[in-house]
Amino acid sequence: MGRVYNFSAGPAVLPEEVLRQAAAEMLDYDGTGMSVMEMSHRSKPFAGIIETAEADLRELLQIPENYQVLFLQGGATQQFAAIPMNLMRNKVADYIVSGSWSKKAFKEAKLYGDARCVASSEDENFSYVPDVDAIEFSPDADYVYICQNETIYGTRYPKLPDTGDVPLVTDVSSMFLSEPMDVSKFGIVYGGVQKNIGPAGVTIVIVRDDLVREDVLPFTPSIMRYTTQVKAKSLSNTPPAYGIYVCGLVFKWLKEQGGLTAMKAKNEEKAAILYDYLDQSALFKATARKSDRSIMNVPFVTGSDELDALFVAEAKSHNIESIKGHRSVGGMRASIYNAMPKAGVEALVAYMAEFEKAHA
Amino acid sequence: MGRVYNFSAGPAVLPEEVLRQAAAEMLDYDGTGMSVMEMSHRSKPFAGIIETAEADLRELLQIPENYQVLFLQGGATQQFAAIPMNLMRNKVADYIVSGSWSKKAFKEAKLYGDARCVASSEDENFSYVPDVDAIEFSPDADYVYICQNETIYGTRYPKLPDTGDVPLVTDVSSMFLSEPMDVSKFGIVYGGVQKNIGPAGVTIVIVRDDLVREDVLPFTPSIMRYTTQVKAKSLSNTPPAYGIYVCGLVFKWLKEQGGLTAMKAKNEEKAAILYDYLDQSALFKATARKSDRSIMNVPFVTGSDELDALFVAEAKSHNIESIKGHRSVGGMRASIYNAMPKAGVEALVAYMAEFEKAHA
Repeated sequence: MGRVYNFSAGPAVLPEEVLRQAAAEMLDYDGTGMSVMEMSHRSKPFAGIIETAEADLRELLQIPENYQVLFLQGGATQQFAAIPMNLMRNKVADYIVSGSWSKKAFKEAKLYGDARCVASSEDENFSYVPDVDAIEFSPDADYVYICQNETIYGTRYPKLPDTGDVPLVTDVSSMFLSEPMDVSKFGIVYGGVQKNIGPAGVTIVIVRDDLVREDVLPFTPSIMRYTTQVKAKSLSNTPPAYGIYVCGLVFKWLKEQGGLTAMKAKNEEKAAILYDYLDQSALFKATARKSDRSIMNVPFVTGSDELDALFVAEAKSHNIESIKGHRSVGGMRASIYNAMPKAGVEALVAYMAEFEKAHA
Repeated sequence: MGRVYNFSAGPAVLPEEVLRQAAAEMLDYDGTGMSVMEMSHRSKPFAGIIETAEADLRELLQIPENYQVLFLQGGATQQFAAIPMNLMRNKVADYIVSGSWSKKAFKEAKLYGDARCVASSEDENFSYVPDVDAIEFSPDADYVYICQNETIYGTRYPKLPDTGDVPLVTDVSSMFLSEPMDVSKFGIVYGGVQKNIGPAGVTIVIVRDDLVREDVLPFTPSIMRYTTQVKAKSLSNTPPAYGIYVCGLVFKWLKEQGGLTAMKAKNEEKAAILYDYLDQSALFKATARKSDRSIMNVPFVTGSDELDALFVAEAKSHNIESIKGHRSVGGMRASIYNAMPKAGVEALVAYMAEFEKAHA
């Protein structure tokens, strides 16, 4: 069969051009006679791959000089532990809990010190982002933590908290490279790549120099220490080399698309097609508060479990895949990452309209 | 250009048939209209991939029922921390230090308790394996740790230590699936896959049920707890899905080759071609003690740094790649894993003979 429109929340759709190039180079990368999977991570060709990937990422995100870029393993979940292990000197950290991922990060941080939930939107099933202006942060906090786009609930921070001199740490997994961002506002910007950038198994951590310190919690595993990884340029042990290569291909693709300003425009256009339909629909309803809506993950419901199930079941015949919502919200969820073409969103909306007409 | 003979120690050569299949399925896995890279790890197609991979691995290694199979991230290096974190109840562990990798594991374990070096071969640059019968193990040790095949020095345990009731933990990264092994002799068998099985970024941990316990060291990150991963069947967070898929293709390939008994015969035949040449050569000399030689990694030297450098430099024109030795040993190293064809070893020996003749 042909390619489907894949609305999976992650791992998720990748640009078809990138997949075609990866397939074409599988047995012989750039005349080396080897697959990237087979190359020593200390070899010149691989050095070229990872250095180019970092340079392209720096260009795309306009990463300031005083930030290090690391390509790590373990997913965002591993960073849930690594962040407190590396940053908790006062053993205090403030967490804003706006969904499942920040809640998990908060819970993990409690293993390492006094992690404080300074605001939560759990009272309304995480359908909104807490008002950051109403939060009193701990003056002795080592950092303030947020998950800037909650994949499951489809919310995104409309405004960042002002944390003064306390470093702000942001998990951007499900919005990574979907739009420009000012890295200098953060102590750490990080995310798993498997939503918007590449194959699962690579975590990108962008960390400000002053947070790369030797005085980590004493039991921090060597490879989870930012010092280790910064010194070794992510090669303290064998990195997830093939995944980094695919990320690099996606960075090139993003540059060809016009960079992050162009991506933002495309993503907003795609999201508007879907939200505009939802806002006028008599059947379907978006679940996130309008002011806090994500342009990457769009959960919606009909209000009837039976109709939701029917919509999901019949999606396949419309070439639409992985549209089922997460059990925490129910209904449907359309993840419309960078690599989802506008035609995919249009196909979804056309199916929704057809479904609504049939079940009016 | 065509494919080269790639003697890299890892990441390393993969079966050409496997790479061809991965390339062919890159845009559409098994009629799903998606790449394996794009699939939700909770989807049915991916469940099929990981479950089949586990079943095939269990069949290949004849893994007993009371062992769990985990597909994790972070490499062997991450397990250097995870093993003491999960197993150190008495906070005592015995390490046999027979090379760089067991030495690194030993050093990391000291972060977590009283790790004791009970035997070492560092006195002769790790060119042999300590006599396991001469070791006095600590009666209160939580486990005894070995690296069964030291990649850099080209040694392999000719005999396993008898540790009685104390669990034996073995790092088999550079000999994984190169021959049958009796898993029941071990508490944990583990290794990174990037040498003999698949692309970097997947670590396979085979752990006996009684070592999967809740009472780990309290600061153990959730995803490094074996309990977490066993309960979630390696899916507690997004796994390195594409890497697991390629490992699964290699498992199928190994079964087609006749399984591990057949692989052992092929590997011994390849190793014998190289060692027989080395043992009669007036120029080249294998560096590991004969009784402890690895059949996977074969370091050798000429005795002259200039000739070593010349041999490495001219190898490329003989279609031979990544033959340079590790700086700890110098000279050359041929890693002749499962996927290295006999023709590759023959080509290497032919080049060695030609070189020896020219520089006699």
